[in-house]
Amino acid sequence: MTSPHREAHDVSAPTIHDLPVGIDATGTRTETDLLGAVPVPADRYWGAQTQRALARVGIDDDRIPAQVYHAYGYVKKAAAVINGRAGRLPRWMVDVIARVADEVIAGELDSEFPLSLWQMGGGTQPNTNVNEVMANRAIQLAGGQLGAKTPVHPEDHVNLGQSANDTFPTAMHIAAVTALADDLLPAAIRLHDATAERSRQWDGVLKVGRTHLADAAPLTVGQEWSGYATQLEDAVTDVDAAKARLLRLALGGTAVGTGLNAPPGFGPDTANLIAELTGRPFVPAANKFAAQASLDALVRTSAALRGLAVALYKFANDVRWLASGPRAGLGELRLPREEPVCASMPGKINPAEAETMLMVCIQVIGYDTGVAMAGSAGNFELNPFRPLVIHNVLRSARLLAGVADYFREFLVEGVQLNDDKLRHDVDRSVALVTALSPVIGHDRAAEIARLALDNDLPPRAAALARGVGEDLYDRIVVPANLAHPGAADRG
Amino acid sequence: MTSPHREAHDVSAPTIHDLPVGIDATGTRTETDLLGAVPVPADRYWGAQTQRALARVGIDDDRIPAQVYHAYGYVKKAAAVINGRAGRLPRWMVDVIARVADEVIAGELDSEFPLSLWQMGGGTQPNTNVNEVMANRAIQLAGGQLGAKTPVHPEDHVNLGQSANDTFPTAMHIAAVTALADDLLPAAIRLHDATAERSRQWDGVLKVGRTHLADAAPLTVGQEWSGYATQLEDAVTDVDAAKARLLRLALGGTAVGTGLNAPPGFGPDTANLIAELTGRPFVPAANKFAAQASLDALVRTSAALRGLAVALYKFANDVRWLASGPRAGLGELRLPREEPVCASMPGKINPAEAETMLMVCIQVIGYDTGVAMAGSAGNFELNPFRPLVIHNVLRSARLLAGVADYFREFLVEGVQLNDDKLRHDVDRSVALVTALSPVIGHDRAAEIARLALDNDLPPRAAALARGVGEDLYDRIVVPANLAHPGAADRG
Amino acid sequence: MTSPHREAHDVSAPTIHDLPVGIDATGTRTETDLLGAVPVPADRYWGAQTQRALARVGIDDDRIPAQVYHAYGYVKKAAAVINGRAGRLPRWMVDVIARVADEVIAGELDSEFPLSLWQMGGGTQPNTNVNEVMANRAIQLAGGQLGAKTPVHPEDHVNLGQSANDTFPTAMHIAAVTALADDLLPAAIRLHDATAERSRQWDGVLKVGRTHLADAAPLTVGQEWSGYATQLEDAVTDVDAAKARLLRLALGGTAVGTGLNAPPGFGPDTANLIAELTGRPFVPAANKFAAQASLDALVRTSAALRGLAVALYKFANDVRWLASGPRAGLGELRLPREEPVCASMPGKINPAEAETMLMVCIQVIGYDTGVAMAGSAGNFELNPFRPLVIHNVLRSARLLAGVADYFREFLVEGVQLNDDKLRHDVDRSVALVTALSPVIGHDRAAEIARLALDNDLPPRAAALARGVGEDLYDRIVVPANLAHPGAADRG
Amino acid sequence: MTSPHREAHDVSAPTIHDLPVGIDATGTRTETDLLGAVPVPADRYWGAQTQRALARVGIDDDRIPAQVYHAYGYVKKAAAVINGRAGRLPRWMVDVIARVADEVIAGELDSEFPLSLWQMGGGTQPNTNVNEVMANRAIQLAGGQLGAKTPVHPEDHVNLGQSANDTFPTAMHIAAVTALADDLLPAAIRLHDATAERSRQWDGVLKVGRTHLADAAPLTVGQEWSGYATQLEDAVTDVDAAKARLLRLALGGTAVGTGLNAPPGFGPDTANLIAELTGRPFVPAANKFAAQASLDALVRTSAALRGLAVALYKFANDVRWLASGPRAGLGELRLPREEPVCASMPGKINPAEAETMLMVCIQVIGYDTGVAMAGSAGNFELNPFRPLVIHNVLRSARLLAGVADYFREFLVEGVQLNDDKLRHDVDRSVALVTALSPVIGHDRAAEIARLALDNDLPPRAAALARGVGEDLYDRIVVPANLAHPGAADRG
Repeated sequence: MTSPHREAHDVSAPTIHDLPVGIDATGTRTETDLLGAVPVPADRYWGAQTQRALARVGIDDDRIPAQVYHAYGYVKKAAAVINGRAGRLPRWMVDVIARVADEVIAGELDSEFPLSLWQMGGGTQPNTNVNEVMANRAIQLAGGQLGAKTPVHPEDHVNLGQSANDTFPTAMHIAAVTALADDLLPAAIRLHDATAERSRQWDGVLKVGRTHLADAAPLTVGQEWSGYATQLEDAVTDVDAAKARLLRLALGGTAVGTGLNAPPGFGPDTANLIAELTGRPFVPAANKFAAQASLDALVRTSAALRGLAVALYKFANDVRWLASGPRAGLGELRLPREEPVCASMPGKINPAEAETMLMVCIQVIGYDTGVAMAGSAGNFELNPFRPLVIHNVLRSARLLAGVADYFREFLVEGVQLNDDKLRHDVDRSVALVTALSPVIGHDRAAEIARLALDNDLPPRAAALARGVGEDLYDRIVVPANLAHPGAADRG
Repeated sequence: MTSPHREAHDVSAPTIHDLPVGIDATGTRTETDLLGAVPVPADRYWGAQTQRALARVGIDDDRIPAQVYHAYGYVKKAAAVINGRAGRLPRWMVDVIARVADEVIAGELDSEFPLSLWQMGGGTQPNTNVNEVMANRAIQLAGGQLGAKTPVHPEDHVNLGQSANDTFPTAMHIAAVTALADDLLPAAIRLHDATAERSRQWDGVLKVGRTHLADAAPLTVGQEWSGYATQLEDAVTDVDAAKARLLRLALGGTAVGTGLNAPPGFGPDTANLIAELTGRPFVPAANKFAAQASLDALVRTSAALRGLAVALYKFANDVRWLASGPRAGLGELRLPREEPVCASMPGKINPAEAETMLMVCIQVIGYDTGVAMAGSAGNFELNPFRPLVIHNVLRSARLLAGVADYFREFLVEGVQLNDDKLRHDVDRSVALVTALSPVIGHDRAAEIARLALDNDLPPRAAALARGVGEDLYDRIVVPANLAHPGAADRG
Repeated sequence: MTSPHREAHDVSAPTIHDLPVGIDATGTRTETDLLGAVPVPADRYWGAQTQRALARVGIDDDRIPAQVYHAYGYVKKAAAVINGRAGRLPRWMVDVIARVADEVIAGELDSEFPLSLWQMGGGTQPNTNVNEVMANRAIQLAGGQLGAKTPVHPEDHVNLGQSANDTFPTAMHIAAVTALADDLLPAAIRLHDATAERSRQWDGVLKVGRTHLADAAPLTVGQEWSGYATQLEDAVTDVDAAKARLLRLALGGTAVGTGLNAPPGFGPDTANLIAELTGRPFVPAANKFAAQASLDALVRTSAALRGLAVALYKFANDVRWLASGPRAGLGELRLPREEPVCASMPGKINPAEAETMLMVCIQVIGYDTGVAMAGSAGNFELNPFRPLVIHNVLRSARLLAGVADYFREFLVEGVQLNDDKLRHDVDRSVALVTALSPVIGHDRAAEIARLALDNDLPPRAAALARGVGEDLYDRIVVPANLAHPGAADRG
Repeated sequence: MTSPHREAHDVSAPTIHDLPVGIDATGTRTETDLLGAVPVPADRYWGAQTQRALARVGIDDDRIPAQVYHAYGYVKKAAAVINGRAGRLPRWMVDVIARVADEVIAGELDSEFPLSLWQMGGGTQPNTNVNEVMANRAIQLAGGQLGAKTPVHPEDHVNLGQSANDTFPTAMHIAAVTALADDLLPAAIRLHDATAERSRQWDGVLKVGRTHLADAAPLTVGQEWSGYATQLEDAVTDVDAAKARLLRLALGGTAVGTGLNAPPGFGPDTANLIAELTGRPFVPAANKFAAQASLDALVRTSAALRGLAVALYKFANDVRWLASGPRAGLGELRLPREEPVCASMPGKINPAEAETMLMVCIQVIGYDTGVAMAGSAGNFELNPFRPLVIHNVLRSARLLAGVADYFREFLVEGVQLNDDKLRHDVDRSVALVTALSPVIGHDRAAEIARLALDNDLPPRAAALARGVGEDLYDRIVVPANLAHPGAADRG
């Protein structure tokens, strides 16, 4: 049987010129598509369909994220190479497409991808945009005429064996994995490490505990911060687990998941090659129908980002409260002084970094709401909300990465303890009598607490007034022991 | 032209017996529908379709809210009366349906409406359930045989000129208006009034202000609470505005909004009658297509409930923080003592009412998320998510009404001020120097604040140390004047 | 008594030069604040605190929206004028501040406001940024030395009688009212009008109704679209009502709502002047404590925007389904052809505008989730989440305005009916037998429907087979009458 | 050193009577706590604090879930046994507490736990309720006087070495793990299996694909359903992963995480014992501060439940659309007939199960919003929102489990294909020409598609009209091959 792809091999290889990115032209040139001819700025690589799309929308300055286009570079390169191995593209064309793909990966063609986020759903237009730009750039390198669609055709060659419906999901996953692995996870781990370091540093510093915002048994500052560090550690683990699921790539499913028009093995072969090119363990999605019709892996990722935001919110909220005052607040922490001050109230220090963190966390939670709603709203073989979802996921990842570094550098690493206030609060805390409960019983301990509160007595005075012996009190109620009861027991 | 409803008039009027609600029977009787015969518990009024529905679902104990069925009583009564006026039902039948409707309104048949919330969407089944129960109860009163569908037929008579698609939206609106008017708004206004009363009572009590959780210029406790009262007033106004939109009733649109099978004027006539029966100014929806295809008026209502929750969250959160301590917190408020105490830490008092309020507010916000998503997800001439939406709206209204009373009675009316702490914080507040800014300039005032903070000085000492005259300081920095600067200016 | 503002009057008026915006300098100049000296780019107007803030954060490219700064122009102008009237600023300074404020309003200084959205909360830094820029620009016009803080001082003059805590809420409200009044509401009304026009145009075109996605009684396309138009009308009314609440301005409350350091009547006077300057009926907030401590009016606005999004989602979702196919879908609508086509499946037309609309609506719902959470999370005299909330509200307003125009122009005004498909579906619809119910009873009508469905018969054939007379059928089952039953009744 | 727990051993062992659950008494008895005496119904086991709590709140009928109390049985049993091993409780008391704990676990004391969900946060009251009930039940078995707190004291014995702040988190985790393992996961797996079975069954049935709701290349019904099955499989995996994190127990941290008043090794020992008693691999939380201060593991679980809801929404939404019609919809699926029918439109079949599923999924998403917000809002050593969060998580799990079974039994297992419609749509689909693209090029294929659509031609006729040979067409465009292109390639 004659190969249906015979034509590709008939093209005699053109000479490829080593030209820098850029078109030295002014005015417009004519590009064409099924609907006819369209004038396009002569110094742009894109074609008729991108131009039509551009002409119609200007809702806002949100764009399809650049990281998605960089990821598309890997997709197109892998597709070209595997198509070449299958004898569907001649070697010279594989080489030129791969070269242009490298330019896309490197961001050298970023300005050629101008589409608004608020366009048709699904990713059709970004795929077309990439096809058009890469074809024209390849044509330029091959000495052809821009817009002629020969010797490199946007659909027949750059898009060969592909569809927006498998390439865009693939590019989304590559982009998200990259953002998590390169940006968010390292920043979150840096924040964890700095937090754990403060925890160790402050392990011996006593403070009053608080439950229901009420004074409770003491613990150490280090113990409290070990909780923040542990929350971060768990959140990081969960983001990492979400990342693992993103490693499955849809490529090879083409239009509806069946792989129509893709050669046998296209999915596994391209996934393996993308893994090799990126150095990340991407694999082919075992079921392309789920991989293309759902956004579940990104919904899962967004939930993990939200989980990190929830943990960070608790951390930053505690810190701003612990730093409240300086006189009429909790006053346990002293914020660094370098932060900007207040215009109307002289000398006032505000918890800037904590507030920034809280704002970011809420925005991430809001983005996630949209992701979940969008994720549920796909139909049949495609979910049109992909551009929104990848935008929100990448934006959340970037915001969290940025704020993690900011919060770490300017707050966690700089904040100091107010030792006087910490000691003062522990010494006066009526919750110290909790330690007496196992010895004198809960009911007597409660009476002592009541006496202290009603008469504004120190806890020791109240205990003695209720008949607790000095020796007993001083042996049992040792704040440092209360915070490390295991240590005391072991002593 | 012969009336197509001629048959109705041919039925000679049966004798109506004055029987109490209840069927004295055991075992089962046979009811029928299009799909055939079904055994139904003999002591129940419902028919074949309700029984089929019951047999299929037992997901949870959530039910279509009873208030919706009570509202259905008004719908069926009004429909029967207007059908009677149009000559479509004989007088005796109007009377008996109206009588049964009154029983439905009074809740006497509540146990006959057992359907799960988690059934078919749209409201089809509750409408059918009501039709079946009312027909059988009417048959009982008329001395007929239960299940015979004569002399009163569930569809041909009880449902005459109606559809689930106009009756259920109508019942939802009646139920929601009732819940807001009878329960939520009075409770919210009571809470507002109690809050405003505390505001007046504490108008002269100075306290330190806090912005960004940092000590700021002083105000009075009464001023702070006037803010809570104003937030409540605005939220109440907004709930009331949402209620106004719910007054529009879909009845008369029947299956798809066109009014098919309803007599001319059915919508306005029934709305007017429902207004008369309920004493509330219900009106016919001008556009039935929107009234039946969208849930926008309930989405709007849910947003208003959320708005109230947002205001209440701020109030309760402030209060629990102001009551934090008693020693290592802000300690401005003293919580009432009647609340339950802590098992592990003797004598500890927790801000129970505030925490309850916060939990309710978050639940309301969550319910509202579902309402918005459901509101967007209708298709064409119907939104299937109606049961979910009315459940969430009524539940939110009930929770807010309940917690408003609880918070008012046990916290707002009982909480006391800690005068010593309030005075202490004001006197030491470095923010007092803000008052000097207009006289000595912002930069000098800032230096004084800095000096005070760095050396733990009282603000007055720091000001004098920086060359401010005693006279000037004591004339300008009068905390009571700072909280009522207008008063000072007027003095 | 000597005025504490005496100093201001002692400055002899400098000559004001008519210089264009811009600083002709390179390198850096030194600016100072409480923390010391800071080098600032010499061609920038901002001062030390803005520079410090800039140096610390680079999380993302989100910025405090430019509209907020434009609104700040009105705030600063009104404050200067009223301060002048109160004798707190000399006339020349009022004039120069007002002139610079006009430049801010006109956007001529936009590039001087570079602060990230992800900074300290509350609005402290934008207020400081505005003070610094306006002071230096005024100093430039007065022939002074940039950074010298004389003859115009950022805090003592530009910020006189103000605080971030009352100016930022005021600017937020002005910006939001402007966005709603100038952009969103006109666009939404245009969409409503175009929708209503299609509704009128298609009033006579029959179509099959659908409830629960199942074939239901017929209505006209015009009726269906009248529902969309009515939903839009109600949503617009609600956005307008939300706008009304935003007219209340916090200005005059200063640091904590008491008006400390503001002259008597400052709130009402500035609000009146802002109303005059903007041509919009702004009023002073009656209770500054609520106005500054809560974001309730913006939460309310965001809910109204969400309500519009919910209505638009239904509209666009219906439209894309009605246009589905062209052969294996509902196929009632024909989308305009100008839209971009599909790369992998030749000739395919996708519902681009509807998908864009759906994506925008979901994003608005997500933004609103963040707004509600942020609105609940204020503490005491300030809510730090203001920057996030005004960003989300303005962004939602802009997205909705843009997509309303896009959807109107490219879809509503261009979509066409597929008359053949509409007629075909109506003729075959078994739901036509609904019209027989009042005559032959619901149970017989149901049998006919069942017969038609089980044997794939046209409804008329099934009715006749079950003994309905031809005359009766043809008199009752007239689809056009079914869609306008009132008309038939009147006939 | 003398053991502080010496007292416990001094109590001589009372005789334990084998009495059934229940108190044969009427009227009230007096119970006491720190605040004084309280009359309690004489036939109830609870004590003074539970009674006080009950007296104050009646917001709604939501309760702390019974599963939490059952889990508390394990907590109290394990604590008693380990306390006994440490010599802190005498053997007879360990035995009687363990016996009562078994009654709690078995649900025999459910009616003794009446507390509203809308109470104080944190779990203080449920823990106290359990302590009171278990102590009185133990007193009853020991022949003592109810309310006397001897020989078994609620705090000193039942609560020994514990706090609400470690027991409630522990009980939440045990309850959630149980709900996921026993109910939700099996139901979800059953649904998966039934879906996969349909997928296999329909593997050879061709259908038209749909992307952007537009006709696309064909696939098989089995392929489409394999996507649903895969989504379910992934969602189940994720719920299972979330469950794994819940295995960490806080017990041993007591009041603030330090373990104050708990014996050494209490955390590991009780966790091991709970693992043994439940047969589930519970482990001690390595960091009690995070385990008690955060709700992150439940936020994570809620996100996984939401993920399952998102996947199910897509599935059910597709199904109801595929079943739409029967004549003017997609009509590919035939719903089972047993479902209830429509009151106003005779013979109409609605997609009841799919609508129920969609409603449940939205409610789960709404519950999850509340969980995330609550999870972020803890402070210092406790998150007060625990009751709300465990309620929402358990409710979501139960709803999803119930609806999974309902949807499986009544829809997945009963739905049938409409073979005629499926074949008809495939044959007419213009998307078939996609298969020609690799042979004749994308541009020519697009022209053919255009011709077919504009002239209402079958795809084959259009292709031939544009010069494609019959042989070529019939060789390439074989729908069955298009759905299994790999198979064709292999052929």
